[in-house]
Amino acid sequence: MKLATLDDDSRDGRLVVVSNDLTRCTDARRIAPTLQAALDEWPRLAPELAALARALESGSVPVERFHERDTLSPLPRAYQFLDGSAYINHVELVRKARGAQMPPSFYSDPLMYQGGSDSFLPPRGAIPSHPDWGTDFEGEIAVIVDDVPMGTDAETARGLIALVVLLNDVSLREKIQPELAKGFGFVQSKPACACSPVAVTPDALVQWEQGKLSGALEVDLNGVPFGRADAGQDMTFDFGTLIAHASETRALVAGTVIGSGTVSNKLNGGPGKTVAENGAGYSCIAELRMIETINEGSASTPWLGDGDVVRIDMRDESGYSIFGAIEQTVVEL
Amino acid sequence: MKLATLDDDSRDGRLVVVSNDLTRCTDARRIAPTLQAALDEWPRLAPELAALARALESGSVPVERFHERDTLSPLPRAYQFLDGSAYINHVELVRKARGAQMPPSFYSDPLMYQGGSDSFLPPRGAIPSHPDWGTDFEGEIAVIVDDVPMGTDAETARGLIALVVLLNDVSLREKIQPELAKGFGFVQSKPACACSPVAVTPDALVQWEQGKLSGALEVDLNGVPFGRADAGQDMTFDFGTLIAHASETRALVAGTVIGSGTVSNKLNGGPGKTVAENGAGYSCIAELRMIETINEGSASTPWLGDGDVVRIDMRDESGYSIFGAIEQTVVEL
Repeated sequence: MKLATLDDDSRDGRLVVVSNDLTRCTDARRIAPTLQAALDEWPRLAPELAALARALESGSVPVERFHERDTLSPLPRAYQFLDGSAYINHVELVRKARGAQMPPSFYSDPLMYQGGSDSFLPPRGAIPSHPDWGTDFEGEIAVIVDDVPMGTDAETARGLIALVVLLNDVSLREKIQPELAKGFGFVQSKPACACSPVAVTPDALVQWEQGKLSGALEVDLNGVPFGRADAGQDMTFDFGTLIAHASETRALVAGTVIGSGTVSNKLNGGPGKTVAENGAGYSCIAELRMIETINEGSASTPWLGDGDVVRIDMRDESGYSIFGAIEQTVVEL
Repeated sequence: MKLATLDDDSRDGRLVVVSNDLTRCTDARRIAPTLQAALDEWPRLAPELAALARALESGSVPVERFHERDTLSPLPRAYQFLDGSAYINHVELVRKARGAQMPPSFYSDPLMYQGGSDSFLPPRGAIPSHPDWGTDFEGEIAVIVDDVPMGTDAETARGLIALVVLLNDVSLREKIQPELAKGFGFVQSKPACACSPVAVTPDALVQWEQGKLSGALEVDLNGVPFGRADAGQDMTFDFGTLIAHASETRALVAGTVIGSGTVSNKLNGGPGKTVAENGAGYSCIAELRMIETINEGSASTPWLGDGDVVRIDMRDESGYSIFGAIEQTVVEL
């Protein structure tokens, strides 16, 4: 089942069920007015929405054309966003570059931060920026969960994943260093993110297995392939493990968004290669700048500037977009 | 105007307007079903709620008895919680104790972290705990804001404060040190908080001035006075400044909760005194343990354990509770 939230000038938009090929949709308001309302009663309403999805595919319900540009993020505002760092290749590389060991705990205790969830940008929404901020994208996978009781284990947590989305975790690199030095995590340096136009249930994802999504995360910058890292490779912590970590001391309310962190693939333990060099490339500019620094002594690729366009997408085995594409233009203030 | 959310077995409760003396309330659902719904259209609905509050005081609308024990936190789930550290006395003392200077930036650049907002405990709700967690309370003031555009200045921000509450920021001290060492802020070490039974508009607070609330924050542990720090003293950053900091790179959605951090008073620059010694006492156990460590070489007051009761309240000049009391019992898992 695929769900989306259409912009109707309200804060939460209106819920539609989307056809598997993303060409058509049907209004779901008789079941739930918004995605959050559906998640509030997910065990009861998910089967009703699934039935509507089957009716949409068979053509037995009223149909509208579906346009990705008409969507908001599936949850335009959510009650919680927790973002992990499940692909620790990036952390390993940074440390290797400066000759530091990885603390052994990093392989068993996930890095995770509490992110802002009050506003997710539309999938085609502008990224507000400032020349001094060092604006960057981060291509990620994220899940939206049902209610998670405190102390849930990873196996149980995998069964509480309601939906999967792509996510652009906008990061202000020049603000991260001084903010993290203060010791309390990210506030100003992690502004609003955007999710893919469509959220998909795990059972509709052929590439979903054991809390991980396989497939190349296609990240393009200004129309040029920038990253093709496989989301199923080098993911040290699956989503079940991330959810278990998040819920160790507290329950998570239905609709909580859990991010994977920047998708990043190893290359025989060494620094990665760009897509142009037949490598997997990078899901954020920061990684490429790190590789440039290792190879050339300094970074040459600039951060995002006015008019730059970031596109994040993933295709199924037949080449069709699974979640629709995030496509955002940077607008300097 | 005073507002509260009564528990009706729904996720968001039902909105009531409460009489100034906290003895009576009246249903506000014909104006807005929930507090978040009221905040979603605050400029239009706040005057309607204020008119209902006047009708309640004059006895011209149906009235129910108001019981603090029947409430949920005013926003049982919110879209955002950002907690500042506006009372930097605590930070100064810690550093003085170990002979370290305060970085000058700490006096102009607020410390703030992104907290969990998906679940606020009821004001009389149990605090789930574990003997290894080092469970502590933190008595704070918090505000709930209207929509705040990106880049709002402190003066404008003060005008966007919709409501004021008391807040117990539950903190797991034994989990804070290792979690902050990972560099990404708090997740497991800051579980669900609780707010006071009643939220109050700034115009109804005699003790509100220039984004600060004056008055002793009464914190009792097991019926014994623990803290009487004045919330209007030693607040380095007023709420306008905290909101401006939070909104520098992003808009804040209506209903965002901004906390002050633990209320803490100086005592001639030296370590504080307990309430029993006629001092202002402390708004968290951690501060007392720090003073004990400075004076006696080690901390003797234990963290919260099973059955401990924390009470947080504030009274007006006539001795009446302004917000109702947070009163929570610790329950070990």
